[in-house]
Amino acid sequence: MSELTTPYLAVEIDALERNLVAMAETARARSLSLRPHVKTHKSLEIAARQVEHGATGISVATISEAEVFVSAGFKDVFIAYPLWVDRSRGTRLRSLAERCSLLVGIDSLEGAEALSRNTGRQGGFDVLVEIDSGHHRSGVAPGAAAGLALAAVRAGLSVRGIFTFPGHGYGPGRAVQAAAGEARALALATQGLVSAGCEVGVVSGGSTPTAALSDAGVLSEMRPGVYVFNDAQQLEMGTCVMGDVALSAAATVVSRASGRPVLDAGSKVLGADRPSWASGYGRVVEEPDARVCALSEHHATVAWPESSPLPELGTVLRVVPNHVCSAVNLAEELVVVRGGVVIDHWRVAARGANG
Amino acid sequence: MSELTTPYLAVEIDALERNLVAMAETARARSLSLRPHVKTHKSLEIAARQVEHGATGISVATISEAEVFVSAGFKDVFIAYPLWVDRSRGTRLRSLAERCSLLVGIDSLEGAEALSRNTGRQGGFDVLVEIDSGHHRSGVAPGAAAGLALAAVRAGLSVRGIFTFPGHGYGPGRAVQAAAGEARALALATQGLVSAGCEVGVVSGGSTPTAALSDAGVLSEMRPGVYVFNDAQQLEMGTCVMGDVALSAAATVVSRASGRPVLDAGSKVLGADRPSWASGYGRVVEEPDARVCALSEHHATVAWPESSPLPELGTVLRVVPNHVCSAVNLAEELVVVRGGVVIDHWRVAARGANG
Repeated sequence: MSELTTPYLAVEIDALERNLVAMAETARARSLSLRPHVKTHKSLEIAARQVEHGATGISVATISEAEVFVSAGFKDVFIAYPLWVDRSRGTRLRSLAERCSLLVGIDSLEGAEALSRNTGRQGGFDVLVEIDSGHHRSGVAPGAAAGLALAAVRAGLSVRGIFTFPGHGYGPGRAVQAAAGEARALALATQGLVSAGCEVGVVSGGSTPTAALSDAGVLSEMRPGVYVFNDAQQLEMGTCVMGDVALSAAATVVSRASGRPVLDAGSKVLGADRPSWASGYGRVVEEPDARVCALSEHHATVAWPESSPLPELGTVLRVVPNHVCSAVNLAEELVVVRGGVVIDHWRVAARGANG
Repeated sequence: MSELTTPYLAVEIDALERNLVAMAETARARSLSLRPHVKTHKSLEIAARQVEHGATGISVATISEAEVFVSAGFKDVFIAYPLWVDRSRGTRLRSLAERCSLLVGIDSLEGAEALSRNTGRQGGFDVLVEIDSGHHRSGVAPGAAAGLALAAVRAGLSVRGIFTFPGHGYGPGRAVQAAAGEARALALATQGLVSAGCEVGVVSGGSTPTAALSDAGVLSEMRPGVYVFNDAQQLEMGTCVMGDVALSAAATVVSRASGRPVLDAGSKVLGADRPSWASGYGRVVEEPDARVCALSEHHATVAWPESSPLPELGTVLRVVPNHVCSAVNLAEELVVVRGGVVIDHWRVAARGANG
């Protein structure tokens, strides 16, 4: 790949395909629908492969992400986010709902009323009530789900079920408890809605670290995202091994003056994500014991094991970012490789689609 | 600004102008040239204003940033980075050097040789030797500068001087010591080069936190970047006050279910930068005691002071990112406002120009 100028993001297509197959099998074995979150890759080509492998639809985080994928022909889209819908967003949602099967998240009465008022759709917009299963970000407590669902119906919405994001499963050793919390919260919320006479067609959860632990007795679908590529966080959580990592940043050693290799991929390529439990800002494929120990906008300083010779200046290394979703959103395209040969370029079609 | 859809980055043009004037005066009072780093704003409009205010040239981090600004007519450009120059980069550098006065950083003999070999320019490329003044990222020790400069000349380059980045000045209470270290290192390196018979026309240092502390007896120019906007890091270091912050992310309160406001600007808008000494992932203009205490890709959870009423759902707040360079690089455009009225849109022309 020496004809390309570093830094760039390379996707190992065989590893990607293995990851797509494995997650599809994980879902199938549990009789769960798979509705992957495309915010990870923002790529039409990868979303199409996910559907080919049996995904029943896609999850997105924003209206503009939905617009990118619906314009490309995707027909079943869940905006897994408690949108605040003003008139402008209402118009955009109505347009989307005319072109695809659309679900939107709610977690407040005010939000539900704004959604209903500003979409003004005959027959009611389809929504899922967001449940807080322990991540404490958005979502209502399981016991409050039925009340919100009934209020949403009164506001003119069609409640199709519930969803949660077990984000508290991020961190070594946390996935089992988070998956149990997810199942408990979703079961309790389902019970509440059923008792209140609401239909609960969709019970949606899941994340990459908890996917294989999803309780098939409670959930109907899961929405993992990162699994397509994996990243250094997943490595540290034990969700994957290095052979499962399908995306890395190709970066050149530009300095060794400090005694450590400094690479030309910084936070504007890798993203600056670093949870407290991470051992660094990223890893190096060629040297498993190396860690990105400092990160500036255009420099990654690597703590290199003393037992291993320092890479020469000009060497191209592959850096695994901590959080692949952040890295992808910084790139215009993904360079697709097989066995070190570039076979394609995929556009990051929904890059920067935050609104 | 309610006609715009959050999240977006807003630039308060009057605060920006005040910041431009103040830094130009800081440089002038010290008889230092000002060569601001445009990686912060990546905007042709702001770079033009910097030149109008007396900047003698601009600093960039990458060849592609240089290409954006040189194509727009900027004539004096320093790539403040120890580039590894292969043939492709050599061709691009040669093209740039035909169109502007170009300086490039070096910090190794191998890098200098590659630069000379792959640009193959008659008369030698103009370079500055990078000095490590305590940040320990790239750059040679001050005592090694003369040796590298002589070797670079032998390799066919034209050494015009030296530069350093006192990045160890980032952190509360660290600027004074970092500025002193910068002056010491640059003085020592200058002495070495002069003793070896090298011309030292340029002695370049500076950063936003150390700019006002720059030693005019040693430096000839400074390269601050962040000062145009400031950010939450500068607030916490005491480099600025809230009134000096010229850029914020407009974000909507989308959830209060957890008891805390959750806003629709996450790490894909603000950047995930968080040094260990920062009190959060960002601040809120409207509530100085609030802190962004958790950040996902599309959610900012805000620790809101108990003494203050929670903002209503749908409220638009202005979030000050920790590191404004990261936030700007995530946006396609900057929304320029004066007194709450949108007066312009500036493109982030060098967005993602990492290579």
